[in-house]
Amino acid sequence: MFDFQVLGADGKARVGRLSTPHGAVETPLFMPCGTCGTVKGVSPDQLRAAGMQMVLANAYHLMLRPGADVVAALGGLHAMMAWDGPLLTDSGGYQVFSLASRRQVTDEGVVFRSHVDGARVPLTPESSVAIQAHLGADVMMQLDECPPADASADEVARAVRRSADWARRARDAWRQAGADERQALFGIQQGGTDPALRAESAQRLVELDLPGYAVGGVSVGESREAMATVLAGIDAQLPRDRPRYLMGVGEPRDLLAGVAAGVDLFDCVLPTRNGRNAQAFTLAGRVKLRNAACARDPRPIDADCDCYTCRHFSRAALRHYVQAGEMLAATLVTIHNLRFFARLTAAIRQAIAEGCFARRSAEWIERMYPP
Amino acid sequence: MFDFQVLGADGKARVGRLSTPHGAVETPLFMPCGTCGTVKGVSPDQLRAAGMQMVLANAYHLMLRPGADVVAALGGLHAMMAWDGPLLTDSGGYQVFSLASRRQVTDEGVVFRSHVDGARVPLTPESSVAIQAHLGADVMMQLDECPPADASADEVARAVRRSADWARRARDAWRQAGADERQALFGIQQGGTDPALRAESAQRLVELDLPGYAVGGVSVGESREAMATVLAGIDAQLPRDRPRYLMGVGEPRDLLAGVAAGVDLFDCVLPTRNGRNAQAFTLAGRVKLRNAACARDPRPIDADCDCYTCRHFSRAALRHYVQAGEMLAATLVTIHNLRFFARLTAAIRQAIAEGCFARRSAEWIERMYPP
Repeated sequence: MFDFQVLGADGKARVGRLSTPHGAVETPLFMPCGTCGTVKGVSPDQLRAAGMQMVLANAYHLMLRPGADVVAALGGLHAMMAWDGPLLTDSGGYQVFSLASRRQVTDEGVVFRSHVDGARVPLTPESSVAIQAHLGADVMMQLDECPPADASADEVARAVRRSADWARRARDAWRQAGADERQALFGIQQGGTDPALRAESAQRLVELDLPGYAVGGVSVGESREAMATVLAGIDAQLPRDRPRYLMGVGEPRDLLAGVAAGVDLFDCVLPTRNGRNAQAFTLAGRVKLRNAACARDPRPIDADCDCYTCRHFSRAALRHYVQAGEMLAATLVTIHNLRFFARLTAAIRQAIAEGCFARRSAEWIERMYPP
Repeated sequence: MFDFQVLGADGKARVGRLSTPHGAVETPLFMPCGTCGTVKGVSPDQLRAAGMQMVLANAYHLMLRPGADVVAALGGLHAMMAWDGPLLTDSGGYQVFSLASRRQVTDEGVVFRSHVDGARVPLTPESSVAIQAHLGADVMMQLDECPPADASADEVARAVRRSADWARRARDAWRQAGADERQALFGIQQGGTDPALRAESAQRLVELDLPGYAVGGVSVGESREAMATVLAGIDAQLPRDRPRYLMGVGEPRDLLAGVAAGVDLFDCVLPTRNGRNAQAFTLAGRVKLRNAACARDPRPIDADCDCYTCRHFSRAALRHYVQAGEMLAATLVTIHNLRFFARLTAAIRQAIAEGCFARRSAEWIERMYPP
């Protein structure tokens, strides 16, 4: 049911097909964040119409509210959120280390305070797998330890070894539960910006022969240079016949850097968060719809865009909705932004297939980020 | 371009067809409120899919923001809000008397403080017509004086005479501007709960031979008994060959009372406002999605409903979205509520055509409002 095929390559960049029990998707692929079981502001049919193929949800949020048992009783996450395409759930490692107010980490696992009701919640590699098996997404992520960007070398090294140990325990739990027949488990590489630790982390994960591998810890306050250091290693560190997922990325130029380094999957809150903040992505840079310049602008956000918003609404109308506090503004700009990422990744796949990815990528970056 | 035909009747209740430059609609009809140029929380395609045929917008809000000239420069209100069906704009009389913080009313017109920026804004019957001609809706409403529910008899009588005078001036301005070729002008009956004043108000309006007549001043804090008093008179007071519009109504039982009295058009914020407050309309009464009883309820809001929300989402999923503060909750419950009003008015039209409106109406009220 779960399969990954590399269909073509251009340098380290590659085009692939990821098959899941809920259908196949083409990579490189951008996944929007449906953290609490809905991509903020858009319905599943709007998501589909915008060209989204696979959605991320977060086990951390869903285990706290409404609860994995509630989701399971409703027929699983696909049924609850009315999304019949592929779904990936993040384990919550990143959230435990960034959202939970107090946490105690041991080799066994982590105990944290819920941001919803303050309850003391234990989470282990095994319980994370059990929760994600209940949610029923097509891909589940291992529980990992995410050190902060300013962690010491010792802390980063400990996180690498602990995360690798947790990956092994997650794999064993996943196989024992029989979840491996319906759901793929991805391991998560840590190691900060130390190439040796990154290599060690990858090697330990690869020994586990997992269906996919993620690159963690690069979106957590790291610089673009730090990300480049990490990305430089992955094609050698992570097997070419497995999907590679760069977590929490992102910004179009970072996404392009990831593709160039051999990454297949991405997720980020940017298109939805910027949608709610009235900032629209285009290949000519961001359009800030709050700006007075938009007040009488009859043009759509992007004349080349085929999204619902650009086919129906002027910048002036969108700015008016923003100014008037109309929630439709958030929905409409989010739809456009999601379509932007769908079109960008489609253009990336085409460029790789045509063998001109590096040149196209440089052109896009020059247009989007003028010096 | 503008025409109204009564197609059938059952007692005072009637089925009709209202033709406008943007298409024909069947009456009795419920219009959702697109106050600022969008029905809150739903896109035009979601509105259409919910079965909405005609939308109300408010000249008061739009003249203040983004401005009637901006709307006109964007091609008019239909183009700005991407709604190609019939549109009606309210003049803003009601808003001037309820929203504007300070106002001075004379026989000439009204000067008020904008709720947006505090600016001093003059509004006359003539300028209201000019503004609504700029907006370009299919139906425009006269500027009227809306006395509060606790106004004295003298105040109500003055409002009747002033509103009638303003209706005449609005009609003259509307004809002189040539707007009568593209847009219908409706007069608004006032008179509080005094049958004699209501009759006088209607008579003065009918003398103007307007394309339609509205019943004003019954949703402004009036009791159900007061509304019944007003409704009892309208079939005799307002011509049967013109559409009758009961402004700001509303609650299903009031809408049914309006239909029984011979009303054709309705508008109200209830389906959208309740949608944002997680309250869903059904023929079995309201479903309050915040209630803990919904937390594990796998049923849709209404198993008999064919709306997008009921076809895809459980009450438990909707409650989760409400609890998690997800804006999609407002959109989904609004879609259901709009569909409820579309289906209710369709059932009303069918009942009238079958000659059993009174019996069906009594059954619906018994189910929706158990004693």
